[in-house]
Amino acid sequence: MSAYIPDLVANRVSDKAKRQLDLVAKFVEEECIPADPVFEAQIGEGASRWEQHPAIIDELKAKARDLGLWNMFLPKGHYKESPGYTNLEYGLMAEWLGKSRTASEATNCAAPDTGNMEVLAKYGNDAQKAKWLKPLLEGEIRSAFLMTEPAVASSDATNIQLNMRKEGDEYVLNGSKWWSSGAGDPRCKIYIVMGKSDPNNKDPYKQQSVIIVPAGTKGIKIHRMLNVYGYDDAPHGHGHISFDNVRVPASNLVLGEGRGFEIIQGRLGPGRIHHAMRSIGAAERALEWMLMRINDPKKTPFGKQLKEHGVILEWVAKSRIEIDAARLVVLNAAVRMDDLGPKASLKEIAEAKVLVPQMALTVIDRAVQAFGGAGVSQDTPLANMWAQIRTLRLADGPDEVHLQQMGRNENKRGAGVTQKIESQRQKTEQLLKQHGVQRFQPGANIQHKL
Amino acid sequence: MSAYIPDLVANRVSDKAKRQLDLVAKFVEEECIPADPVFEAQIGEGASRWEQHPAIIDELKAKARDLGLWNMFLPKGHYKESPGYTNLEYGLMAEWLGKSRTASEATNCAAPDTGNMEVLAKYGNDAQKAKWLKPLLEGEIRSAFLMTEPAVASSDATNIQLNMRKEGDEYVLNGSKWWSSGAGDPRCKIYIVMGKSDPNNKDPYKQQSVIIVPAGTKGIKIHRMLNVYGYDDAPHGHGHISFDNVRVPASNLVLGEGRGFEIIQGRLGPGRIHHAMRSIGAAERALEWMLMRINDPKKTPFGKQLKEHGVILEWVAKSRIEIDAARLVVLNAAVRMDDLGPKASLKEIAEAKVLVPQMALTVIDRAVQAFGGAGVSQDTPLANMWAQIRTLRLADGPDEVHLQQMGRNENKRGAGVTQKIESQRQKTEQLLKQHGVQRFQPGANIQHKL
Amino acid sequence: MSAYIPDLVANRVSDKAKRQLDLVAKFVEEECIPADPVFEAQIGEGASRWEQHPAIIDELKAKARDLGLWNMFLPKGHYKESPGYTNLEYGLMAEWLGKSRTASEATNCAAPDTGNMEVLAKYGNDAQKAKWLKPLLEGEIRSAFLMTEPAVASSDATNIQLNMRKEGDEYVLNGSKWWSSGAGDPRCKIYIVMGKSDPNNKDPYKQQSVIIVPAGTKGIKIHRMLNVYGYDDAPHGHGHISFDNVRVPASNLVLGEGRGFEIIQGRLGPGRIHHAMRSIGAAERALEWMLMRINDPKKTPFGKQLKEHGVILEWVAKSRIEIDAARLVVLNAAVRMDDLGPKASLKEIAEAKVLVPQMALTVIDRAVQAFGGAGVSQDTPLANMWAQIRTLRLADGPDEVHLQQMGRNENKRGAGVTQKIESQRQKTEQLLKQHGVQRFQPGANIQHKL
Amino acid sequence: MSAYIPDLVANRVSDKAKRQLDLVAKFVEEECIPADPVFEAQIGEGASRWEQHPAIIDELKAKARDLGLWNMFLPKGHYKESPGYTNLEYGLMAEWLGKSRTASEATNCAAPDTGNMEVLAKYGNDAQKAKWLKPLLEGEIRSAFLMTEPAVASSDATNIQLNMRKEGDEYVLNGSKWWSSGAGDPRCKIYIVMGKSDPNNKDPYKQQSVIIVPAGTKGIKIHRMLNVYGYDDAPHGHGHISFDNVRVPASNLVLGEGRGFEIIQGRLGPGRIHHAMRSIGAAERALEWMLMRINDPKKTPFGKQLKEHGVILEWVAKSRIEIDAARLVVLNAAVRMDDLGPKASLKEIAEAKVLVPQMALTVIDRAVQAFGGAGVSQDTPLANMWAQIRTLRLADGPDEVHLQQMGRNENKRGAGVTQKIESQRQKTEQLLKQHGVQRFQPGANIQHKL
Repeated sequence: MSAYIPDLVANRVSDKAKRQLDLVAKFVEEECIPADPVFEAQIGEGASRWEQHPAIIDELKAKARDLGLWNMFLPKGHYKESPGYTNLEYGLMAEWLGKSRTASEATNCAAPDTGNMEVLAKYGNDAQKAKWLKPLLEGEIRSAFLMTEPAVASSDATNIQLNMRKEGDEYVLNGSKWWSSGAGDPRCKIYIVMGKSDPNNKDPYKQQSVIIVPAGTKGIKIHRMLNVYGYDDAPHGHGHISFDNVRVPASNLVLGEGRGFEIIQGRLGPGRIHHAMRSIGAAERALEWMLMRINDPKKTPFGKQLKEHGVILEWVAKSRIEIDAARLVVLNAAVRMDDLGPKASLKEIAEAKVLVPQMALTVIDRAVQAFGGAGVSQDTPLANMWAQIRTLRLADGPDEVHLQQMGRNENKRGAGVTQKIESQRQKTEQLLKQHGVQRFQPGANIQHKL
Repeated sequence: MSAYIPDLVANRVSDKAKRQLDLVAKFVEEECIPADPVFEAQIGEGASRWEQHPAIIDELKAKARDLGLWNMFLPKGHYKESPGYTNLEYGLMAEWLGKSRTASEATNCAAPDTGNMEVLAKYGNDAQKAKWLKPLLEGEIRSAFLMTEPAVASSDATNIQLNMRKEGDEYVLNGSKWWSSGAGDPRCKIYIVMGKSDPNNKDPYKQQSVIIVPAGTKGIKIHRMLNVYGYDDAPHGHGHISFDNVRVPASNLVLGEGRGFEIIQGRLGPGRIHHAMRSIGAAERALEWMLMRINDPKKTPFGKQLKEHGVILEWVAKSRIEIDAARLVVLNAAVRMDDLGPKASLKEIAEAKVLVPQMALTVIDRAVQAFGGAGVSQDTPLANMWAQIRTLRLADGPDEVHLQQMGRNENKRGAGVTQKIESQRQKTEQLLKQHGVQRFQPGANIQHKL
Repeated sequence: MSAYIPDLVANRVSDKAKRQLDLVAKFVEEECIPADPVFEAQIGEGASRWEQHPAIIDELKAKARDLGLWNMFLPKGHYKESPGYTNLEYGLMAEWLGKSRTASEATNCAAPDTGNMEVLAKYGNDAQKAKWLKPLLEGEIRSAFLMTEPAVASSDATNIQLNMRKEGDEYVLNGSKWWSSGAGDPRCKIYIVMGKSDPNNKDPYKQQSVIIVPAGTKGIKIHRMLNVYGYDDAPHGHGHISFDNVRVPASNLVLGEGRGFEIIQGRLGPGRIHHAMRSIGAAERALEWMLMRINDPKKTPFGKQLKEHGVILEWVAKSRIEIDAARLVVLNAAVRMDDLGPKASLKEIAEAKVLVPQMALTVIDRAVQAFGGAGVSQDTPLANMWAQIRTLRLADGPDEVHLQQMGRNENKRGAGVTQKIESQRQKTEQLLKQHGVQRFQPGANIQHKL
Repeated sequence: MSAYIPDLVANRVSDKAKRQLDLVAKFVEEECIPADPVFEAQIGEGASRWEQHPAIIDELKAKARDLGLWNMFLPKGHYKESPGYTNLEYGLMAEWLGKSRTASEATNCAAPDTGNMEVLAKYGNDAQKAKWLKPLLEGEIRSAFLMTEPAVASSDATNIQLNMRKEGDEYVLNGSKWWSSGAGDPRCKIYIVMGKSDPNNKDPYKQQSVIIVPAGTKGIKIHRMLNVYGYDDAPHGHGHISFDNVRVPASNLVLGEGRGFEIIQGRLGPGRIHHAMRSIGAAERALEWMLMRINDPKKTPFGKQLKEHGVILEWVAKSRIEIDAARLVVLNAAVRMDDLGPKASLKEIAEAKVLVPQMALTVIDRAVQAFGGAGVSQDTPLANMWAQIRTLRLADGPDEVHLQQMGRNENKRGAGVTQKIESQRQKTEQLLKQHGVQRFQPGANIQHKL
């Protein structure tokens, strides 16, 4: 709802975007959220959970396309395929998408496809675009991004080990990946894979390449899907996959050998903003469920509805403040990306990356607590939202890695501020002399005798 | 390991209990923890998860009985069936049991059987004991405790609605229960049910009765099991069950009509201590897994092992402090229960009830964060332990209910301390006069002119 | 420095304001901060602290006026005396003023004069303006605002008791006030006093009036100044003052009898924004001092500079995030005030009021901790800044009052969201039927036998 | 009051100690607390604050000696001068002493005299004992401990720089000290000084010596006293002192050259317990003041007394839990010191050192907030208690230093737990084979086609 646009950004949101935002809000609230449990019901049970194509999702996709709610994530001005929204404007929409399990996919704005489409649109050649970008943009296939590995600390991407050996006009891939999100889905047709093509390069940021690997290529083994606090996230899933002499045409290489870091760095900024805004949407939805609960006339512990308990009202108020503050932080990063690009916005993006998941987890956990047993169960969306967002404190590097990096960057000001404070002190000494006064020091006249 | 006994309680633990504690520790570490994944593997997938009797659990039970590790929870001095340990001594053992999914059941010390056995031992008549307490003490059957209801705020037990109407020598039960933990297990043979036998009694604490209902009685419908985050906790499970004209012999009534409150209050104290100590064990295990992770030579983000990162070492230290503090709080409550009984220990038990789960969640979450993706997945015990303990902030009343009650109790000192401080002030005024001095008040001589 | 303008607001700040902001920044860093210790030295010791007029402050005022740095707080468009800045623009300047003890006074932007000038400019008649507003705007006199009373819970202004009885063409005032900030200064010439002129009015918001009382009027007794932690804040001070039949001409009444609430409500909004932005400036300065400390080559506990300790870098990063988030919250409120006025901005102002002091206290306390002993002493500005800002969690109502109010307001959405969620649920049921599927419920097929 | 003894330690407290504890409690509540404001009034204003000997303190000391409340800190069994209490027993008394500004001095149990007396009793020779220990034990003189230096990170004592050069039968001291607490008092007659007598010794823990320096020795300059959040703590004070060729007889050396580390390490353990228990007493007193405030019938913001506000009751309850938990942690350390000595209790002492001040600051700050303006002012003891305890997070090493040390110590278990978990995993694999089952892995059968 355009009513949710903070005053601070209102003048940066075009009328077109405001209309689109209203459409998105209505679509999410009236179509997607009601469809979420149907999606889950259609996935079913047991091994078949990984073979389903829930019919409801195709219905929603058709509706979304009809409404023009499609690919809004592709930022204006950078891609000819873009529907024409800024990062700020899409950010506001992503907040709404984050309230529903199905909304991002229904509007073809779901991770990791969004990042993969950006990679292909930005770095792919025409053949790659025709073969893979087009069906992705059409929502005909899905994709996965394979970077993290089980054996190394992948938060530092120089540790990545998967070997990409060139043999003739093929690359031969060997290694293991996990947290390959989306790899469980039968519609997932390509993997964007990061590996080491030149492990001995002296520049540790030139050893990596990115290559497109069709799902089902010989030598690929999907071992299993990883759980997230008991959830398997089927059919999407988080794959643990090994590569045993997997052969891929060299023409599948993206951008060029040794340019893997360049590609993944360009990929991360917008994705972090999208995740952050979706998490804010989830927090808003949790707050709404909490409001519903505390106004439930049947729930009157010790004779009062929960809304009459001061502690609960304080949770509501704090949640309101924390959500609103976090949203402004993300939108500030989005605006900076719009104005100056992702590289100039690393600090702002990192602030959003660290702040938002912790905020959302806090807000959702308060809602869980307000609900009692129902909060941890399948009867509210809360427990699942919490688990999903908990992974965001780890994905793309744990909070602590980002905080250390931010701390080091901020600390670069150390020499400058030291010099400034020192010169202020000198000026103070001059002024004290000029004015003929001395700093008062208590006890300065104490003289003890032996 | 007796090495874990805090100095403060060492002189209260008998040599017999110290030897038992060492046996428990060894059994948990060497038998139960390795068996946990086997237990899970034997439960399997899909609907059959609710029909399994994992063979490993019977193996463990046989071993435990051979070692004399059986029913340690039944406190010394109160029950002839007791193996002779105090609440303090069993508390120390329960910490070890809490490290493993199978250990409590293997030693016949698992909730809700423990509380149910206490109820039957304390309040049951001879016939009830022979029929149900005996097989429970032998570990032949299991049980559930049905109090919480979906439609009301059950943290206030006066809200309980399930109707128990007497007809001839039967009670007829109608109503709904949920969070009936353990009701999923095919070995669960009895439900201890709390309901309203006299809903119009003027004393709201005399309306309730407790009755024993055999599982499978006609009119009982198990609708489903409730998830905890994404875990179903099969085969144990948390049942959502309805009663439609369920007829039970009046002889199944425990203690007498209208005495339900009395029964559940006696039941709660020890159970809270057990849960708290098991949670401390879980926190200790999480800390150990974290220590393993941060010493893993393969995990070196940015060239350093995690144990060299100051932030991580601080997590370790804080976890150490918080676990140790929480343990002392629980053991203090256990000692008071041993000395003065549960009713005189309500404050101390409530302190443990509120403090421990929050502490354990914090410690486990730090471990999750240290592990990265593995932490939220099935590859560590962390995510599951977190989800289990999260429910303890809600079970038996959410934290907030206990805090309000504790706040009100503490506030009873208000009049007394006010009087004391007032008399101190008066004495101060006398002393100031005697000594001929006045309080210094800055600015007391300011006189501004018009 | 205009470099500090967040991207989100950059396009709302006029070029004129950007130039002014640069001037303010330079003036604060190069003139005011070095002058702060001189100001303190000139106040001196003992009772004379309340009689001083530090010469340095007049020097700074003269410089500020020369530079056109005067009365920037008076918002554009509302007052003909305004130098022409929006609340947003002045907010950015106030951040800089908050770094120095002397800067706000030097630029005639110090509380409580700012609020009092707004009251007089908005509600005063011509005679009142000529007599008191003019010299205040010129910086010739200072003023105090007397609302809070020692005997009642003044966070609820209906509790205010000071009696204003009309006798002929005079009001006779009787009662006590405290936390009358600024009343210690010999230059403080008027008190803006809130009292009860009609204590029996049925409308509790019509009982109060506001009247101008010249300092030094007969019957006024300044009892003392209140400390803030150990600081007396001389010569400004926080007065404890009694009124014993103090007679004031009825022409000193502001706006009209019974309109006290109206006046104080109009007064609060901008003042909260100013305090919040100054607190953000203080937090920024604390962060700079911390950066100086952790880069001090002489401070190497255990062989490493503090900047190499991961925990310290994390403090730096978290401080960066928290300051930036809080600033956006305040600026969002300022923009809304600019666009829609204070009444439409109550929620946004309250968010800033609650969030900022807690943030600033946290950041400053980290800096104190990084400094060790020096941090709590007179050798850094940190301890004093902390104490000043600690009062902001109490002034104008404690955090808890604002949180309750915000919680209640947010909770007004309860009925609406309940209805929405209910209709979403109904739609889900329809969709499930249409698609011929059922929600999966684990254990739904369990059937136990007797 | 013996009623405050936690159940966990009750059986370790002798009847004699229980009687003494009751006497201490009564003396503190009825004599010392009422005398505190008199003490402050007698100190007066300005420079004379450092020259006072408040008469009230001698009155209290006389009363205390009459009651046998003297030197209780000297632990039983280690010193012939001890009145015969264990560290645990004195700890319980120290909690009471911590409620009053005058109580520790009145009973000759005030820091830093207590630590200095322990040093002299343990390491001093007969001549030193006769000359300095005796008058200290008699309460005739006071003392200071000079370790911390302004120019270095003194949390790492190897950084200490004050030079002690031997010339003939004298040591010549040159250097600077600060945070020399107690050095302001005219009754302070000796300084226990840590310095470097052998700065080139290869063992960095053998470079230091400790020497007794009479106050007033030529070459000593007291520059000033350091403030703590605006408080000067006169007449005690925290001195900043320089040594310019200060000559002291070599016979004043304690224990022997190069044994400074040994001495200060022995000194720290008990002192940390004393500080911690006094802080717990302060927290208890803050809680009592808060209870008084929230039951004040005159303070009814928005029509309810504060005790009826749920948020406030939750503060009360949390404070109760946190104080009780912290007390157990300190007492556990005291018991371990009693049983095994300070060296074996480093972990337990460190836990108390870190946990207690943070707890006490939180509890006191809640009380400040409940009081509103009065809380930060001179009208309650809260602000001053807060400031005093804030220094304990820095004194004897900041929290962070202790946490790092504790983290490293705990991490020594890393290899052991890794091995244990690894062997548990191997056993699991064996059991899985034996039982013929496999771990369930979701998605293990996924096979995507090209």
